[in-house]
Amino acid sequence: MNCIILSIGDELILGQTVDTNSAWLAQQLAAIGVACLAHVTVSDDQSAITRVIKESAARCDVLLISGGLGPTPDDLTRQALAEALGVPLELNASALETLEGFFTKIKRAMPPSNKIQAMLPRGSNAIANPNGTAPGIHAEFPHPRCHIYVMPGVPGEMKPMFRDDVLPALRTGSSGAVILSKTLHTFGMGESAVAELLGPLMDRKRNPSVGTTVANGYVSLRLNSRFPTSEEAQRELESTEAGCRTALNALIFGAEDESLPLATSRLMGNRSVTTAESCTGGLLSKLLTDVPGSSSFFKQGWITYSNEAKHDRLGVSENIINVNGAVSEPVVTAMATNARRLAKADFALAISGIAGPGGGSELKPVGTVCIALAHMASDTSRAERYSRSTVSARTFLFPGDRQMVRDRAAKMALTLLRYHLLNQPLPF
Amino acid sequence: MNCIILSIGDELILGQTVDTNSAWLAQQLAAIGVACLAHVTVSDDQSAITRVIKESAARCDVLLISGGLGPTPDDLTRQALAEALGVPLELNASALETLEGFFTKIKRAMPPSNKIQAMLPRGSNAIANPNGTAPGIHAEFPHPRCHIYVMPGVPGEMKPMFRDDVLPALRTGSSGAVILSKTLHTFGMGESAVAELLGPLMDRKRNPSVGTTVANGYVSLRLNSRFPTSEEAQRELESTEAGCRTALNALIFGAEDESLPLATSRLMGNRSVTTAESCTGGLLSKLLTDVPGSSSFFKQGWITYSNEAKHDRLGVSENIINVNGAVSEPVVTAMATNARRLAKADFALAISGIAGPGGGSELKPVGTVCIALAHMASDTSRAERYSRSTVSARTFLFPGDRQMVRDRAAKMALTLLRYHLLNQPLPF
Repeated sequence: MNCIILSIGDELILGQTVDTNSAWLAQQLAAIGVACLAHVTVSDDQSAITRVIKESAARCDVLLISGGLGPTPDDLTRQALAEALGVPLELNASALETLEGFFTKIKRAMPPSNKIQAMLPRGSNAIANPNGTAPGIHAEFPHPRCHIYVMPGVPGEMKPMFRDDVLPALRTGSSGAVILSKTLHTFGMGESAVAELLGPLMDRKRNPSVGTTVANGYVSLRLNSRFPTSEEAQRELESTEAGCRTALNALIFGAEDESLPLATSRLMGNRSVTTAESCTGGLLSKLLTDVPGSSSFFKQGWITYSNEAKHDRLGVSENIINVNGAVSEPVVTAMATNARRLAKADFALAISGIAGPGGGSELKPVGTVCIALAHMASDTSRAERYSRSTVSARTFLFPGDRQMVRDRAAKMALTLLRYHLLNQPLPF
Repeated sequence: MNCIILSIGDELILGQTVDTNSAWLAQQLAAIGVACLAHVTVSDDQSAITRVIKESAARCDVLLISGGLGPTPDDLTRQALAEALGVPLELNASALETLEGFFTKIKRAMPPSNKIQAMLPRGSNAIANPNGTAPGIHAEFPHPRCHIYVMPGVPGEMKPMFRDDVLPALRTGSSGAVILSKTLHTFGMGESAVAELLGPLMDRKRNPSVGTTVANGYVSLRLNSRFPTSEEAQRELESTEAGCRTALNALIFGAEDESLPLATSRLMGNRSVTTAESCTGGLLSKLLTDVPGSSSFFKQGWITYSNEAKHDRLGVSENIINVNGAVSEPVVTAMATNARRLAKADFALAISGIAGPGGGSELKPVGTVCIALAHMASDTSRAERYSRSTVSARTFLFPGDRQMVRDRAAKMALTLLRYHLLNQPLPF
C-alpha cells in the first residue's frame, strides 16, 4: 500500500508556516508499513487543488489531505474534492447536527458561514472531529481505486482524527509490512569518510537500509528496516545497528534525540569539567549547560577573549603569547592547565582560534583552532591532583564562516573530552 | 514568473526531518513577487526524482531543487537530473578543481567518493558552494523553457547559495508589479502588544501591508509594498517604515538580518562590556562574540555557575547568597559590580536565574531570572571609574522550557544594555 500526503494552504505555500503535518503523518504511515511516494503542498486555489487531487489519486492507494476545511471563503478543499470526483456538494444532515451540537456545547450561536462545513461531496462520509467544527471527509475514487481522507489543517484537530479514525482504517487495509527506523549520530568525520567506513552497509538495496544526512556538523545515520512482522523488523534493525557500531565504534555518540553535550555528560560520572574559551566566546560552556542538571559536572568557566584576559584571569604568561601567538598549542595548554587548577576541576577544555572573518594569515588562516584537554597527571598525590596536569593539545582547521568555525570548535572540544572519557584514541 | 519547490530526501519523506527549506525558499520567492505553484517532496529514489523533475519543469518557469547532492550512494539528484534532461553526467573540471581546493584548504585528503560531486549533467553549470563540498547546478529545459537550480539540502549551504547566486538570477528574470519588502525586528514585547501599538498600520487591506511573525522570542514586522514602479514602492515602503518606527520607537532594534547582538554592538562606540553569567552558562557571551570584530568591545567574561564560583571568582559574599539566594537582585548586583571592576569594563551584565527543568519553588518558579547592568557611577573620578558602579537590577519571569528561558534571559540582558546606550527607559 502506498500513499501521497497533500497539504493545502496559502500560509504553507508562501512559507509563512512550516508544514509539520506532513512529517508527522509520514512517521505514522512508516510505522504501519505504508510507503509514502510524495508530499505535495498547494495553495488555497480550487483549480490547483482539484488538479493535484486527480493526479495524485491516479497513482496511489491512499491520499491524505489536510487543510482548507475552515468556514471562510478562502477554504476550498471540499469544493475541489467534489470537482475532482465530478459530484456536487450536498448538505449532510448528520454532519450539520454534530456541528450545531458543537456550538451548543461551547454556548455560542453558530455563525451562518459555518454551515458550509456540513456540506460534503455526494457519496462521501463525514469523519467526526471532536476538537473543532470541520468534520473530516472520506471519499473513494473508483478506477484506479484510491481512498481519500481529508482532515483539518490545525494539528490539534488533525492528529486525533488521524489516530482515531484514519489510522485504524489504513491498518486494516495495509499489506502488513512494518517499517522501523533508528537514527545514530556521529561527529568529527565528513560524510564520505563515514560512508567509507560503513562500506556495504550503505548498499542502496540493503534491507535494513542505512543512509547518511548532515546537519550542524553532525553526520547522522538513518536506519530503516522493512519486514512483514515487527519482530523481524526489530531483530534486523538491531543487527544492522550493531554492524554500524562495529564499523564506526566510538564515532557514534548517540541515538535519536541524544545530543553531543548530553552524551558527553553521561560519561562524566562524578567528575567535573571547566572551560577556558577564546574564539568560541562562551559557546562551549553554553553547550555543556544545555544539559539539564549540568551543575553537577560544570561549576565555572572563563571567557578570555583578549590577551590581557588570558594573562590576568588565567595566568598565561605574556611571553608564551608573544612567542607563539594567542592561537597556539602552548597557549591553550597553559589556559587549560591553569583553569583546571583554579577551578579545582577534573578536566579543563581550552579553545583559542581564528573564527574570522578577519584575523587570518597564511600560516594561520581563518578556521585555525587550537584545543587543549587537561586532566590529572598520573602518579599524582591527592594534594596535588588539581595542580599537576597532563595536557593534550591539537590544532584543527575548520571550514565555513565565523559561526560554523565556532560551532565546530566547541563540538570538537566536547569530542576530545568524550574520547578521553571512553579511554579511546581519536580516529582523526 | 512562477516556481515549483522540490525537496529530496528519505529523511523528509519518512517524516524523520521536517522540511524547513521549502518554507524558507517560498518566503524568499514571495518577497520578489515569484508565485509558488507547489512544494513537492520525494525520496532518494532516482526514478521518482526523474519523474517529478520532468512533470514540474513542464509546468513552471523555475524549478528549485534541494537535497541529494551528497557524495554517498543514496544521493541521486544529479543522476536523476541528467536522466530527466536526457544527457550524461560529465566531470566538470572547474568544479573538480574547486572541490580539491576545498579539501586542500581544510588540509584533508579528498576521499575518492567525493569526486561524484564534480559530475554535472552535460550542458549545465556549477554554482559555487563556499560552505561545503557539493556545488549547486543550474540547468535549462528548452521546451517549455524552465530554469532548474539544484542546491544542497543542508540549510547552511543552501541559503547562502540561494542568496548569492540563484536569487539575483531570478530577480533579473521576474516581471510585473514591483514588490519591495522590509523586515523590522523587535524584542521584549509579545505579538499582540506589538500589534496594539501598530494599530491601523496592520489593517489587512493596507498597502504597504504590515504583518507580524514570531521566531526565537523576536517579534518581527514584515512590510510588503506592491506598486507599478519601484520608485513608488520604495517611497511608500519608507513612509510605512517611518510609521512603524514612530509607533514602536526603540523597541525596533534592527532591520533585515541585523541581529540583536550586532545592533547592540553598533551603539558601543569605544566602550566595553563584560559578562557574569550563571543560568545562561555562556550564552550571553556567545551572542556578544557572534559579532565579527567583537574583540573591540568584549574582552572577557565569567561563567559562575556554582555559588562557590560566584564567591571565588567574583567575590560575591557568601552572606549575600545565603540571605537572598543565588537567584536574587542583590547577587546579580554584586556579580555585575565586581565583574566590571575586575575586567575594567565600562559595562557589566550579570544574569542568575532558574532555567529548569528542576530548581523552581513557589516563590521563585522556573523561569525566574535576575539581570543586572552595572555602569560607571556619575561624579566618579577617572581613577575610580571602574571601582564605583551604578547598578540597575530587574527580575523577570520567562515562559517556556530550559532553552527558551536561557535564550530570552540572554536577549533581555542585551536589551537592558541597548536601552541604556540609547538613554531611553525600558517600555516594559
